[in-house]
Amino acid sequence: MKQYIEQHKERFFDELFSILRIPSVSAKPEHKNDMERCAHRLKELLLEAGADSATVMPTSGNPVVFGQKTVDPSLKTVLVYGHYDVQPPEPLEKWHTDPFEPVIRDGAIWGRGANDDKGQLFMHIKVFEYLVRTGQLNHNIKFILEGEEEIGSPSLAPFLKEHKEMLSADVCLVSDTTMISDKIPSINCGMRGLAYVEVTVTGPNKDLHSGHYGGAVANPINVLCDMISQLIDSDGRITVPGFYDKVVELTPEERKMMARAPFDIEEYKSFLDINEVKGEKGYTTLERTGIRPALDVCGIWGGYTGQGAKTVLPSEAHAKISMRLVPDQTSAEITKLFTEHLLSIAPPYVKIKVTQHDGGDGFLIPISSDAYRAASRAIKEVYGIEPIPGRGGGSIPILAEVQKILGIDPLLMGFGLERDTIHSPNESYLLQQFFFGMESIALFYRYY
Amino acid sequence: MKQYIEQHKERFFDELFSILRIPSVSAKPEHKNDMERCAHRLKELLLEAGADSATVMPTSGNPVVFGQKTVDPSLKTVLVYGHYDVQPPEPLEKWHTDPFEPVIRDGAIWGRGANDDKGQLFMHIKVFEYLVRTGQLNHNIKFILEGEEEIGSPSLAPFLKEHKEMLSADVCLVSDTTMISDKIPSINCGMRGLAYVEVTVTGPNKDLHSGHYGGAVANPINVLCDMISQLIDSDGRITVPGFYDKVVELTPEERKMMARAPFDIEEYKSFLDINEVKGEKGYTTLERTGIRPALDVCGIWGGYTGQGAKTVLPSEAHAKISMRLVPDQTSAEITKLFTEHLLSIAPPYVKIKVTQHDGGDGFLIPISSDAYRAASRAIKEVYGIEPIPGRGGGSIPILAEVQKILGIDPLLMGFGLERDTIHSPNESYLLQQFFFGMESIALFYRYY
Repeated sequence: MKQYIEQHKERFFDELFSILRIPSVSAKPEHKNDMERCAHRLKELLLEAGADSATVMPTSGNPVVFGQKTVDPSLKTVLVYGHYDVQPPEPLEKWHTDPFEPVIRDGAIWGRGANDDKGQLFMHIKVFEYLVRTGQLNHNIKFILEGEEEIGSPSLAPFLKEHKEMLSADVCLVSDTTMISDKIPSINCGMRGLAYVEVTVTGPNKDLHSGHYGGAVANPINVLCDMISQLIDSDGRITVPGFYDKVVELTPEERKMMARAPFDIEEYKSFLDINEVKGEKGYTTLERTGIRPALDVCGIWGGYTGQGAKTVLPSEAHAKISMRLVPDQTSAEITKLFTEHLLSIAPPYVKIKVTQHDGGDGFLIPISSDAYRAASRAIKEVYGIEPIPGRGGGSIPILAEVQKILGIDPLLMGFGLERDTIHSPNESYLLQQFFFGMESIALFYRYY
Repeated sequence: MKQYIEQHKERFFDELFSILRIPSVSAKPEHKNDMERCAHRLKELLLEAGADSATVMPTSGNPVVFGQKTVDPSLKTVLVYGHYDVQPPEPLEKWHTDPFEPVIRDGAIWGRGANDDKGQLFMHIKVFEYLVRTGQLNHNIKFILEGEEEIGSPSLAPFLKEHKEMLSADVCLVSDTTMISDKIPSINCGMRGLAYVEVTVTGPNKDLHSGHYGGAVANPINVLCDMISQLIDSDGRITVPGFYDKVVELTPEERKMMARAPFDIEEYKSFLDINEVKGEKGYTTLERTGIRPALDVCGIWGGYTGQGAKTVLPSEAHAKISMRLVPDQTSAEITKLFTEHLLSIAPPYVKIKVTQHDGGDGFLIPISSDAYRAASRAIKEVYGIEPIPGRGGGSIPILAEVQKILGIDPLLMGFGLERDTIHSPNESYLLQQFFFGMESIALFYRYY
């Protein structure tokens, strides 16, 4: 594969850039057309790479791209999952280059989706092309590329249910996660689930003059802050009653194994430029993101946010709150508990509305499987080091559904790095990881 | 005056609309030109009304319009204060008509500045015109119209100091406040001061993926909410140490007198569509806005505030916080106490920055003066009811400076009403109040 990459590198970049240029932001309805364009471009790329067939299949939301090549029904089948939608690029002013005009600079590809997940899914298409063109394809391969991962994959579970047979496979191969570092490869063995809600606090029916009313009428921003402040206690624990009831506690042995992952807290703090970390009492930083749930305000707004001083007591305040979940918490149950709790602590002088964005459940995968062992061997061969089995703090909600509905385990061969700042301005994907990723995936097929 | 209004009404509206159409928003630097335009238009109007002279005088900020007519140096001199700058119109989508295209509808003038303060200051120019043209002017009149009231009048105190002689007068007449209702006239005998700060909380040096970091790194929005929540205790008292040290407590007699102002709590709640009022324990609603200080978050923002769900742990969170002050709290001291307190409660895992916007001190004025009595008699004659001496919750910071620097008491003949929703969308000014206001002001000159 290494040689093939060298020969075709420039074309690879051109093709990848053609999808990175499409602003397929699933969170914003105005990009509907871009979602279609991106799906059709991926269909073309699958056919060019050697798929027997590839189609853009409608869903109640954004379309799913499905492509496949059957070599021999008796061989193992690999289902490659990826997503072509991306996070909103905002805040735009923090990008050094246009988020949708990718560039190569300092040994990396820069642009929204360079890593998450266009860059990572593209590796699979190119490895597929390589295996087909060099006559080395000894598996049946199916691709399922969705356009709603960043908004919680609302249409994909119904799609999986409807097309169970079409999607049948032995393993679901996914590159949509990170490694510990480019020197310390790892394979994700579990991910957190997600519950995401939007809260609106309404006080008076109009914005008021803060001089005429300040001190006599509850200010919805102050109330929202009070309520948010009550959601986490001084030990860093979430106060929603029942929140921890289903959290699977790891055994001391399991925690000891996790602690073997190399982690330098000083490096971590210096990378983020913070003086101290903060989280749930009694757990390490890696445990806090790997095996413990978390609650974060992802966005807050209300009142006057322009330049200068406007003296207003606003009518409304808003917050977007995400909760990262661990097995066996379910997104549905946690959303319900959260909503009930929030309404129960709401003071009588405001009105509260909680709306739900799509979430998903967390999952765990066994490290004893053939697929895991093949991936581990492949990565070891490329990186020279055996990968560490890790736990990802992020969420790919649909993978729990893949497990449940299709009955196949996902295998998370992710090649992202922390430095890639996915979901943030200046997302990038290191070229070395892009190349090593393709080499590792090609070897996975050899050993699986 | 009544007849004069009837004859010239249409011209009055045309002239007033010509200044309402100028978006003189002092909080936004991009309106610099509009400030100049508005000042020059007012100079024209003063000269047309009969001023001996009128000039647009530069300051380090927006210009001051000064105009005067001297009838006889031995007569009393009235200094009319007003401001031609307005609050930002946002949120624009809540306006029923263009904020800067005034209309007359339902017996009121609608538009930004219709009341605060263009509509109210315009009454004084027209009364002045009436007195000049009908040969009834028996006072010397000076106008000082500034363009920075809504941002705390940063340039006016130096201007007052520099031009003490030019501005010498016996009383400073101001229409920039409200009455209890159009049926219950009142004259403001005191106003609150203002301290206004902007707080920035910085956590990690970049926006992070809330899955990868959530639970392990302090979220600046959560921290900001925690800190805001700590600023007011469960009795509604502000927790900043020393905050109440200089607050003048009213005697039981004074509070009894205040309580005579008619006030219907049910009407108040229904006007605002709230189930309960909220404020400092042990004080009534009118006391809470009249004689007690208050702390309000006027704006908050951070993270992702667009449509849909973005899972980000943001780098920064921001809030604009106003504190309304009462005698003898000073804006400078309270800002210092607040800043020190905020830094003292800041947790070690974030960085805090507090910047100060311009504020001002509160003041009280005696109801025994000739000017107050003349105003009271004038209003009683027009409304048929003796006006109640009240306390305004808002702030005109510069008036405390007028008292200190020029040594003259302000007299607050305000004709605004709560229903005018100044500082909010759909600001309006009732025509009846506009007309009664001019009649009252004309009579003030007769009785003073």
